[in-house]
Amino acid sequence: MSDQKALTELTALAARTRAAQRALGSATAAQRTAALRAIGRILGEREAEILAANARDMAEAADLEAPLRKRLALSAAKLATLRDGLAGLAQSPDPVGRPLRRTELDQGLMLTQVQSPIGVLLIIFESRPDAVVQIGGLAVRSGNGVILKGGREARHSNAALVDCLRAGLEAAGLPADAVQGVEQRGEVAALLALDHHIDLVIPRGSGALVRHIQESTRIPVLGHAEGVCTLYLDAAADPETAAHLAVDGKCDYPAACNATETLLVHQDFVPRLAPVGEALRAAGVRLKADEAVRAVLPWAESAAPEDGSTEYGDLTLAVRVVSSLDAAIDFAHAHGSGHTESICTEDQAAADRFLREVDSASVFHNASTRFADGYRYGLGAEVGIATGRIHARGPVGVDGLMTTRWLLRGSGQGAGDYGAGKRSYTHRVLPLS
Amino acid sequence: MSDQKALTELTALAARTRAAQRALGSATAAQRTAALRAIGRILGEREAEILAANARDMAEAADLEAPLRKRLALSAAKLATLRDGLAGLAQSPDPVGRPLRRTELDQGLMLTQVQSPIGVLLIIFESRPDAVVQIGGLAVRSGNGVILKGGREARHSNAALVDCLRAGLEAAGLPADAVQGVEQRGEVAALLALDHHIDLVIPRGSGALVRHIQESTRIPVLGHAEGVCTLYLDAAADPETAAHLAVDGKCDYPAACNATETLLVHQDFVPRLAPVGEALRAAGVRLKADEAVRAVLPWAESAAPEDGSTEYGDLTLAVRVVSSLDAAIDFAHAHGSGHTESICTEDQAAADRFLREVDSASVFHNASTRFADGYRYGLGAEVGIATGRIHARGPVGVDGLMTTRWLLRGSGQGAGDYGAGKRSYTHRVLPLS
Repeated sequence: MSDQKALTELTALAARTRAAQRALGSATAAQRTAALRAIGRILGEREAEILAANARDMAEAADLEAPLRKRLALSAAKLATLRDGLAGLAQSPDPVGRPLRRTELDQGLMLTQVQSPIGVLLIIFESRPDAVVQIGGLAVRSGNGVILKGGREARHSNAALVDCLRAGLEAAGLPADAVQGVEQRGEVAALLALDHHIDLVIPRGSGALVRHIQESTRIPVLGHAEGVCTLYLDAAADPETAAHLAVDGKCDYPAACNATETLLVHQDFVPRLAPVGEALRAAGVRLKADEAVRAVLPWAESAAPEDGSTEYGDLTLAVRVVSSLDAAIDFAHAHGSGHTESICTEDQAAADRFLREVDSASVFHNASTRFADGYRYGLGAEVGIATGRIHARGPVGVDGLMTTRWLLRGSGQGAGDYGAGKRSYTHRVLPLS
Repeated sequence: MSDQKALTELTALAARTRAAQRALGSATAAQRTAALRAIGRILGEREAEILAANARDMAEAADLEAPLRKRLALSAAKLATLRDGLAGLAQSPDPVGRPLRRTELDQGLMLTQVQSPIGVLLIIFESRPDAVVQIGGLAVRSGNGVILKGGREARHSNAALVDCLRAGLEAAGLPADAVQGVEQRGEVAALLALDHHIDLVIPRGSGALVRHIQESTRIPVLGHAEGVCTLYLDAAADPETAAHLAVDGKCDYPAACNATETLLVHQDFVPRLAPVGEALRAAGVRLKADEAVRAVLPWAESAAPEDGSTEYGDLTLAVRVVSSLDAAIDFAHAHGSGHTESICTEDQAAADRFLREVDSASVFHNASTRFADGYRYGLGAEVGIATGRIHARGPVGVDGLMTTRWLLRGSGQGAGDYGAGKRSYTHRVLPLS
């Protein structure tokens, strides 16, 4: 397909998604709930079909690496988990039209700010076909239209799952076109050019994918570019707590964006670092450390300049020494990625300063950086983790898929009716319910 | 100054702003309040100096058009208004650190989402030196750093006012570098390239300026590209209300982005359109109307295809006929700019549908489109009006300058302590205070 033809077809597809989204977004909460229940039911009815499609993908992807094959594989158990997730979304409060602010501007002139769907989302994801149902379900709950661009290796599975979502919408009397699947690799570039038709791009995948997409589009992108997370062991850190947080932060899931990559150590804590070092060594962690640390942990390797700014994604940990709390905060600002930083200390004043002054999406005291996660934060379904500072920051739940509208209910007022010698505004803030 | 030299110097300036912003944002509310009061005091002390700088600008801008000269001119009265604004900001609640959500994840593991400054703002504005104080004050209240790029015609005035802001910060023990003024025309392009140093651009000026900036930067832009606002006269509109809303919407301030540009008329209302037409004619409004309207208002001009999608900015109004409420909503979606649409009707069901289904930042019933404004909405100081759908939408108050951080206070927990057969999350939602 030529670039121009792809652009024309995808523009039309995005326009259909927008029109369908408007119907989905202005439907009742009960209709969106009915659609979520119908999707769950249809997933059950079509289980054999979906697993057959997945078997085709698995057969065609025989030379894929083992971890990717594992992510690609569907099973009856995985489908049951997806149906549970849909049932949970069906029971969760509908965010569309939720009032955020009510103000009486004057008698008979009532302003309400309400939550509204953002519009048309473009989700770009790799391997895992589960994402179709998880994100499609979130889109239905939040009244957003969604264009799902999955990996080519999962195309049969994704197509079967997208069909279930569309059938579920139709069963609830809603337009199927609110959910779209696209699968050609060349389509991504064309979609990223549609900044008048697509309102938000959510890439789910590696930091490299996110960065590539951010650099290729004018559409706002919600995602985490990278996670260089820091654990700072303060002068007043408890060595046992420090060891637990360092091992958990590094080893619980080293490939995750919220894994600890840098251990900052106050110079006064260095003499008590041995048990922390031994716990890390026992967990198989390789240290890249400053010389002062190597005096205590002689088995550690020497740090190079980039250690402390690097997302290793494996069992490597930078260990750098700082002279003060201020120096630790400055180091995190200069070398971290603004994702998550944690202080380990028994000194409440130091903790308070760290939580007040560190300018990262998540800032912790005596807790592992691994807690920076939508599920652990209790946000329900997680849309992703945002390292941007605009719109959403940190773990993002369904609220990250919402914008607002201002509704004003009047009784014939003009703005020229107000002013000196005329009517005045009351600006009375009213309770939300 | 060469482009490269400008880029190097402005990068350093932005980095200084970031460092100073971190101090401003983690200072106490009382310090930010003290800075606002100091700025007000210093504006009073330096009044003669400021007016002299303004007189220089006025003298050099002798060939400026009259409306621009009026916007450029400062006076003792204007300065008093600015001081009043600063006093209001000093009394207004400090948004930094305000808790938005509190959740107990487990005993001794407490999550709080708090409001935080976005970081470094770039404000690009024309003519009005008042903006320096208004926006500089908002930045101080919200803990944001700000780079103020004013028009060259106001450079002496702007410089004098920026000096007052910086002196006020220093008087309160805060770093002056949180507020910066730049004035060279060539600097805008260099600043717009600093997407790692500047977090948000707010252009204050024409739609053309906003569009140009949106197309020239990867930094998120908060602003209104254009305002093509619609008033829809439903079949059940009251003719007197219709006339009042149409005249107010078009004539109260025709150059404003919230002025009504398009009158949509239900075909069944056309026979009752005469008094609305006469009221508009009496107010000096020129109509570009469909033929069915011209049958009733023969003095109206014929509409061309672009009428209904045009921001006139003067006393011109498109008048287009639609066959139904659905057609009116579709017309607004297809031709409006998503800024503000209003329905005039006595039919509550029609109003409810319009308010539910119209996907614009502001949607009104029986009220003039001119109410779409931060002051009228009771938001206090207005940052601007956003026609984007991400981060902020519609009139934006100080909340539009805020992002969030997630603070987690633990007692040594690792994420691996939770799971099957281990500890479970409580996820208890707690009250905010």
